[in-house]
Amino acid sequence: MNENSEKPSNISEALWIGAGNMGLPMASNLISSNKIRLSVHNRTPGRLLPLEKAGARRSDDLSRSLSETPLVFTMLADDAAVRDVAERPGGILDKLPAGGIHVCMGTLSPTFMDMLSEKHQQKGQVLVSAPVFGRPDRAKAGTLTIIAAGPTAALDSVEPLLKTMGSPVFRVGDTPSRANYIKILGNFTLGGLLETLAESLALARKVGVSPGQLIEILDTALYHSPVFRAYGQIMAEEKFEPAGFWMRLGLKDVRLVLREADKLDVSLPLGDILHAGFLAGIHRGYGEWDWAALGRVRDDDAG
Amino acid sequence: MNENSEKPSNISEALWIGAGNMGLPMASNLISSNKIRLSVHNRTPGRLLPLEKAGARRSDDLSRSLSETPLVFTMLADDAAVRDVAERPGGILDKLPAGGIHVCMGTLSPTFMDMLSEKHQQKGQVLVSAPVFGRPDRAKAGTLTIIAAGPTAALDSVEPLLKTMGSPVFRVGDTPSRANYIKILGNFTLGGLLETLAESLALARKVGVSPGQLIEILDTALYHSPVFRAYGQIMAEEKFEPAGFWMRLGLKDVRLVLREADKLDVSLPLGDILHAGFLAGIHRGYGEWDWAALGRVRDDDAG
Repeated sequence: MNENSEKPSNISEALWIGAGNMGLPMASNLISSNKIRLSVHNRTPGRLLPLEKAGARRSDDLSRSLSETPLVFTMLADDAAVRDVAERPGGILDKLPAGGIHVCMGTLSPTFMDMLSEKHQQKGQVLVSAPVFGRPDRAKAGTLTIIAAGPTAALDSVEPLLKTMGSPVFRVGDTPSRANYIKILGNFTLGGLLETLAESLALARKVGVSPGQLIEILDTALYHSPVFRAYGQIMAEEKFEPAGFWMRLGLKDVRLVLREADKLDVSLPLGDILHAGFLAGIHRGYGEWDWAALGRVRDDDAG
Repeated sequence: MNENSEKPSNISEALWIGAGNMGLPMASNLISSNKIRLSVHNRTPGRLLPLEKAGARRSDDLSRSLSETPLVFTMLADDAAVRDVAERPGGILDKLPAGGIHVCMGTLSPTFMDMLSEKHQQKGQVLVSAPVFGRPDRAKAGTLTIIAAGPTAALDSVEPLLKTMGSPVFRVGDTPSRANYIKILGNFTLGGLLETLAESLALARKVGVSPGQLIEILDTALYHSPVFRAYGQIMAEEKFEPAGFWMRLGLKDVRLVLREADKLDVSLPLGDILHAGFLAGIHRGYGEWDWAALGRVRDDDAG
């Protein structure tokens, strides 16, 4: 436990599941904070090596590790991956002790989160949902923005740990899915920015306006926004690899939004365009490019 | 002529046409710069009173004023208004002396600008197109962003005068319509931001996420943009009056973009949504509300 932590956690050990492009640097920051002893688990154990070198213990027997921990983090890609480790025999619901906390940090469906929260409650366990904004570079720097929702006492316990991965940590209430709504709405707005840039630059190219100059002028005149400028430049330069965020994941997130909207009879015309645009991009072979390759889709169709 | 001007204009007098919500503060800043003697003309002469008090001379006989000036500014609402003063007998094309410069500062159609430029050339006159980004508050403060295109010598002459109304002045080449493309593409991107916010907030309300909190979190986590925050807050608070920019004008500008795109066989799916959304808003009585009332349109339809 770090003597300097602003508000020490009452928990001294935890299990971390997920060592992908985001999970790896996030767990690494948690380890180096010295706030907690961390065991780490991943479907592909080879990915855990950097975390073991940093001082984490490798968990090979997930079922046993779960039964010995008061706290488990999951940073997994989608609902299916979380469902797998949560609902399998010997998984989180089965083995996490009563009173244990599951902090679920991926970008997941709010409906799945509501369902998982209820199952945890039935087991006497607690679900905290804490999705993050930021790409791997911000995960490495520990400057993610974290949206956290769940029961107050559990949020109090894990907040100092979340702060090792990013700040601010926005606490948005006691219903876990609230955090997921905010996360997927945020990604939806980024999708809207991409579509806006994609169409603007496609027309700019056709009328002989320099895409790079257009982005510079509009950011200076109107936006003053690093996000506007960064995505604008990726599209102006058509530099879609390496991807910061795959087009396939963009499709996943716009689907999450459209499904929630559909349940509530909310029409999202921009959402429908994004869905069709990302699908078109994937079918043209851009699925593992940055989702800003939506610009290429619009350029293709502008001739 | 102001001794302190960084690059004095070689022109000592000019005529200003247009005293609307933008033209009035822009002309006022030009007068108070003392860089030039200004005559002013407006279809409704009563609007000119503040400019006369500031030291401008009122031009009642437009034809005569034009024949005596080396430089005329127009800050008028649309193509039709400029066409009227430019093409009527005794108008700008008819009376501006050979070598005279017409600086056209409204948000106009690039196609119209190309046509007008050719007509000016046939008369030995020069067209500079210099549309602006910024609402009336920025016009008053003299902090507009100005996009200027036209022959180099003419741009050199008028740039010190443009700088009394805003900076930076972006010079984007010698084809006047280039400036108009950038201006209408810029407004198109703002329309895209409005649609994005409108759909996001409509869904947020339905799922119980506070619109104000969503805007705060997303601006902190992702955008860091005064424009994102300002339009987000207008929509979150549903404060569509007083309007900074009418929905009717939003429709006008998206039509300018769609018409140029259509000529070039460029499809703009987001543009089509904006066109339908602004039209719907106008038919529901929101035409003189701020164009952010696109949020109300999406809320209406989300039930």
